[in-house]
Amino acid sequence: MPDRLGAPLEAPIVGTLALIGVGLIGSSIAHVARRQNLAARIVATAQSEATRKRVKELGLADEVAPSPGEAVRDADLIILCAPVGANTGIAAEIGPHLQQGAIVSDVGSVKGAVIAAVAPHLPPGMHFVPAHPVAGTEQSGPDAGFATLFLHRWCILTPPEGTEAAAIDKVRAFWTGAGSNVEVMTASHHDLVLAITSHVPHLIAYNIVGTAADLEEVTQAEVIKFSAGGFRDFTRIAASDPTMWRDVFLHNRDAALEMLGRFNEDLAALQRMIRWGDGEGLFNLFTRTRAIRRSIIAEGQETAAPDFGRHAEDELD
Amino acid sequence: MPDRLGAPLEAPIVGTLALIGVGLIGSSIAHVARRQNLAARIVATAQSEATRKRVKELGLADEVAPSPGEAVRDADLIILCAPVGANTGIAAEIGPHLQQGAIVSDVGSVKGAVIAAVAPHLPPGMHFVPAHPVAGTEQSGPDAGFATLFLHRWCILTPPEGTEAAAIDKVRAFWTGAGSNVEVMTASHHDLVLAITSHVPHLIAYNIVGTAADLEEVTQAEVIKFSAGGFRDFTRIAASDPTMWRDVFLHNRDAALEMLGRFNEDLAALQRMIRWGDGEGLFNLFTRTRAIRRSIIAEGQETAAPDFGRHAEDELD
Repeated sequence: MPDRLGAPLEAPIVGTLALIGVGLIGSSIAHVARRQNLAARIVATAQSEATRKRVKELGLADEVAPSPGEAVRDADLIILCAPVGANTGIAAEIGPHLQQGAIVSDVGSVKGAVIAAVAPHLPPGMHFVPAHPVAGTEQSGPDAGFATLFLHRWCILTPPEGTEAAAIDKVRAFWTGAGSNVEVMTASHHDLVLAITSHVPHLIAYNIVGTAADLEEVTQAEVIKFSAGGFRDFTRIAASDPTMWRDVFLHNRDAALEMLGRFNEDLAALQRMIRWGDGEGLFNLFTRTRAIRRSIIAEGQETAAPDFGRHAEDELD
Repeated sequence: MPDRLGAPLEAPIVGTLALIGVGLIGSSIAHVARRQNLAARIVATAQSEATRKRVKELGLADEVAPSPGEAVRDADLIILCAPVGANTGIAAEIGPHLQQGAIVSDVGSVKGAVIAAVAPHLPPGMHFVPAHPVAGTEQSGPDAGFATLFLHRWCILTPPEGTEAAAIDKVRAFWTGAGSNVEVMTASHHDLVLAITSHVPHLIAYNIVGTAADLEEVTQAEVIKFSAGGFRDFTRIAASDPTMWRDVFLHNRDAALEMLGRFNEDLAALQRMIRWGDGEGLFNLFTRTRAIRRSIIAEGQETAAPDFGRHAEDELD
């Protein structure tokens, strides 16, 4: 699997692309849209003056608009890249300014709640194609983006029933142009799948880092020193953007609680195995889980380098 | 902080080093002992004929002995590198063959149980300095080792009361020579510290990977495809050696259950915040956990590269 983006497109997929919000995802879209010629022109806006200023300094857009309403005026494709909780307000604000036939999309990690929040604000004649690029790092803000963030990652589209095929195709082409694989599913299935592959993993990572921080018998300095025993892997995920993740749990409550319930049941069974010294039960689970990682590596979704390739030096002596 | 081992020692720290068990840790010790001249001679043994054969092929030792008893005969320092559960049997076997003044050490992730298992089998005049290098990867076996595994990692020594200072100093010098920082603490404190920085993180990683494997509403293929949302980080830890980890939980039961209890309490509170839509509570926890990662990176225990540096291509365009 090539680890580089291919040649830029000969003709852009959209005329004007508007990015509402320029954090890790928004800035990465700007980078890849530029490099791959996915849009003829990029307009961006962000809530804070500081971010808008930084977007200008970084040259991420052809134009930085002062508000969402002004950003979308001439846009063919509008991608909402703010935290999920901000979408209702943004949709209400941009609705009256959209040009006829515009396609609105987003990048939210939750889809059912986003559709409920955004769709009512879009006038007839507009298209809504919700999207979720399953990619990210623990960094946030306009400086965190890079063009290859979406390369070989999956982007899930969850168009509501009745969405025009041409609009779906355009959003699909955009993400394919960014290097992603695209899959279409319902919003409710998306929310269940992501609850287990993303939301609950984040929750338990945040949780164990919090537990470790609150201990009295073990000092913070000890937790930090001896983190290479496994703990440090969790701190990466637990360093993700707090606003984004608060919104994810507030807006995907039911699926997150359902998957968390499964996790808790299974953990109780494991706890019981430890208490009663059931070595066979522990060994069986610990063996079974290896296969999934092998598949993830085989599918190109993960590095095969031991310890994530943390060891810089040549490992063979 | 240099990411390479320094120059080899002019004179070795020990004459003959015996390694009992040659998995990831044992083979890494062999590599670094060779490269840094930590031992004049290395004798190794392993339980299975296949592993002993592989150790010979890889040239990891000067001599491959057919049994622990024969491996320790001329050894000045013996390091037990088998899974924790095998130590009682090995200690009983080597006891009668140790030469006077020999130092026995180990690399187990659990210390209280190892001391209880090994100490009674060592004749008077021998020294026992239990050690735990807090380092590893998800790979196992004699092919998995490399010389820089212990570089900048911590090695914890837990000598029982009354252990001779000269023996402790020798083991300390050995690990310092391997590039590690060394700390001394009691076995019971070690077991508590590692329960939170290593054992519980492994348990919850194994657990969530198991939960995801058992779902009916979400297919295995979907879990694999969309694992980049966070799940894949957990699969690395959940691919660790099953025998080793079974033994850890069987031999550090009380501390693991204590820390797991704390984790569960905290998770119940988080679950409640989600159910009742307590955005402020979620945001506060998610903010607090970022600081720990910054400290781990500042202390040189983790890479600062976003997403563990998974993105191979130049990230600036």
